[in-house]
Amino acid sequence: SSSESSSQVKPGADKEHAGYGTLVVTSEDGITKIMLNRPTRKNAISTQMYQEIILALKAASQDDSAITVLTGNGDFYCSGNDLTNVTDTPLGGIEEKAKNSTNLLRDFVASFIDFPKPLIAVVNGPAVGIAVTLLGLFDIVYASDRATFHTPFSHLGLSPEGCSSYTFPKIMGPTKATEMLTFGKKLTAREACAQGLVTEVFPDATFQKEVWTRLTAYAKLPSNVLRISKQVIRSMEKEKLHSVNVEESSIVQERFLSKESMNAVMNFLSKRAKL
Amino acid sequence: SSSESSSQVKPGADKEHAGYGTLVVTSEDGITKIMLNRPTRKNAISTQMYQEIILALKAASQDDSAITVLTGNGDFYCSGNDLTNVTDTPLGGIEEKAKNSTNLLRDFVASFIDFPKPLIAVVNGPAVGIAVTLLGLFDIVYASDRATFHTPFSHLGLSPEGCSSYTFPKIMGPTKATEMLTFGKKLTAREACAQGLVTEVFPDATFQKEVWTRLTAYAKLPSNVLRISKQVIRSMEKEKLHSVNVEESSIVQERFLSKESMNAVMNFLSKRAKL
Amino acid sequence: SSSESSSQVKPGADKEHAGYGTLVVTSEDGITKIMLNRPTRKNAISTQMYQEIILALKAASQDDSAITVLTGNGDFYCSGNDLTNVTDTPLGGIEEKAKNSTNLLRDFVASFIDFPKPLIAVVNGPAVGIAVTLLGLFDIVYASDRATFHTPFSHLGLSPEGCSSYTFPKIMGPTKATEMLTFGKKLTAREACAQGLVTEVFPDATFQKEVWTRLTAYAKLPSNVLRISKQVIRSMEKEKLHSVNVEESSIVQERFLSKESMNAVMNFLSKRAKL
Repeated sequence: SSSESSSQVKPGADKEHAGYGTLVVTSEDGITKIMLNRPTRKNAISTQMYQEIILALKAASQDDSAITVLTGNGDFYCSGNDLTNVTDTPLGGIEEKAKNSTNLLRDFVASFIDFPKPLIAVVNGPAVGIAVTLLGLFDIVYASDRATFHTPFSHLGLSPEGCSSYTFPKIMGPTKATEMLTFGKKLTAREACAQGLVTEVFPDATFQKEVWTRLTAYAKLPSNVLRISKQVIRSMEKEKLHSVNVEESSIVQERFLSKESMNAVMNFLSKRAKL
Repeated sequence: SSSESSSQVKPGADKEHAGYGTLVVTSEDGITKIMLNRPTRKNAISTQMYQEIILALKAASQDDSAITVLTGNGDFYCSGNDLTNVTDTPLGGIEEKAKNSTNLLRDFVASFIDFPKPLIAVVNGPAVGIAVTLLGLFDIVYASDRATFHTPFSHLGLSPEGCSSYTFPKIMGPTKATEMLTFGKKLTAREACAQGLVTEVFPDATFQKEVWTRLTAYAKLPSNVLRISKQVIRSMEKEKLHSVNVEESSIVQERFLSKESMNAVMNFLSKRAKL
Repeated sequence: SSSESSSQVKPGADKEHAGYGTLVVTSEDGITKIMLNRPTRKNAISTQMYQEIILALKAASQDDSAITVLTGNGDFYCSGNDLTNVTDTPLGGIEEKAKNSTNLLRDFVASFIDFPKPLIAVVNGPAVGIAVTLLGLFDIVYASDRATFHTPFSHLGLSPEGCSSYTFPKIMGPTKATEMLTFGKKLTAREACAQGLVTEVFPDATFQKEVWTRLTAYAKLPSNVLRISKQVIRSMEKEKLHSVNVEESSIVQERFLSKESMNAVMNFLSKRAKL
């Protein structure tokens, strides 16, 4: 409600929220922007980043912004779960690790389900895994035509999460959802838009300009009514989404401990190491 | 079951149902047509028109027509709720007014949820507000390529109704539904068709001819089976739709009484008065 | 898990499962293929074929294949229920016949709802009636551009089955579903794909080659994880689908016994006999 008068301030200057190691969080013009900031790792989500996103969403839900945006720094939007999370085994051993990881995953997804204001994804480049599945919980998804959408769960011996087993069939029908979630078909931005996962696609050259112009206009709508409108649209299935999240997380936990998945993940990491 | 033999009668001659002030209701060739008839007000829905549509739907549900059509007279399909309804304050004051208006709105929407035969919208021009949201309760929606679809609820401090908070995310996915319902994005007929809100778009020049030819053929199917087929497809979510309607109406009632909405509506009306 | 080494064996040679009169069932490369084999009857589903498909799905659910494919031999995918089933009246008379037919229909549909592995339709040509409605229960649907999709239930005095009254509105929105299921609008393959019923359309000339290349790759994914991924995506609505199936079947049974339907079916068969 305050920020229009200060829009001459240099972007990100005194508006940056301190204390994040993997994110850059700024507030301006009624918009809180959470930017994933591990560009050299294609913004892969480390354990620390999971925790920081949960905190940043909590803070954004309570600040005076009208809308909240998630985006990525650099060429990628987000390459999904950082698989080195998985190999970094703690004292409790692999079972403790699987339990902790999936509890964190579950809490992370829950913080998207519960987010009370319009939540907008600005997908600046390729999205992989949980960065894709979570899009079903966003209120608007804008994508650059450079973006791609890929969920190779089966290739890693894993099963779908982020409530995608529920949201994707609703959004794109069960057969297109299955080819993506079960068989790992990668979609272009245009395909993802035709299937309803993406709201609108923009040419990469004008992506940032067009998207932020539109979002700045949207953020000037009465913030109270935006929150209520989201609540009317989303509240009906909140309970359902939480139960889907719990169920999916519990199956992911079993998969983590399966030989099928352990072998597939090790294979993936050793291939990547050789590049 | 009777009307084929009399199709040579001049349209609307002895077929017109008497007693409506804001509608023209006719029955012919197995089709009951309810035409909104306030063309100089862009077919805005006044309190009287709400009441008359409820009555016309009740009559159509009991007549011997196979299908029922809603359309608009003139250039507009329907410009939505007549906002002068809101400003015309009764003896009981503004709270009484808000309560009466939302009760009428709730009963109006309920009469669409309960309508037992195929209900077809022939969208001859722009549609606004509740004329758009209700389309999620129709069984077929044909649109002229002149039609547009616009729900500027947030701009007026209001929240979605007509069961759209439930039907729109189902039809077009949550993110396209949100850009429309929460942020007021206006759709062209082609966009609305690509998103599943409209069944088919026709060039305006041939719209009436193509649509009525098709509907006349459809109305010759066994009327009993049409009613049963609709019941099979729709009965499962009737209860859900009624509860959504009650919930949405109650939130609209609160919004009506909010300063945010009162100011926005007054602003809108005074701007319009200056044109 | 066994078949890659033997892919040089002539197709269908020692891989063919014995004992089917209306189907050809083969297993190879991790794929069990169930081919409808009454090409001179456009693969219409006779009572025997209903029973054999139930058996073939049961066997496929227990064999070591990763995925299961349903397709048709010849120019048609499947022309739907063989209407001579209906006229072939048994000892118990027409009511006994209607009861037996709809019980078989219900069990047939149930075997698709319960099928535990990815189930893929390779739609090689026109599909009619229950061959169309069942597609809502498949996990992937590939179609030749020669395929069409037609459900003329109302024209035969019948009501939708195969869970289509539930799956089609979810997949394509209620108005496109109604124009198809209630008014019998025939879709091209491209239209069915745009509406989400078909996953992808291929030119007929390269259809078989492109589809089988893709499916052979998909079948190499860990078969355990494919089964689990399907379960995560589909288990949530299994109970709902079974109750829809029971309800739809009971209404179809009533329709079978209605004069409207009996006359319409007799008309259809006598017209066809004259061709």
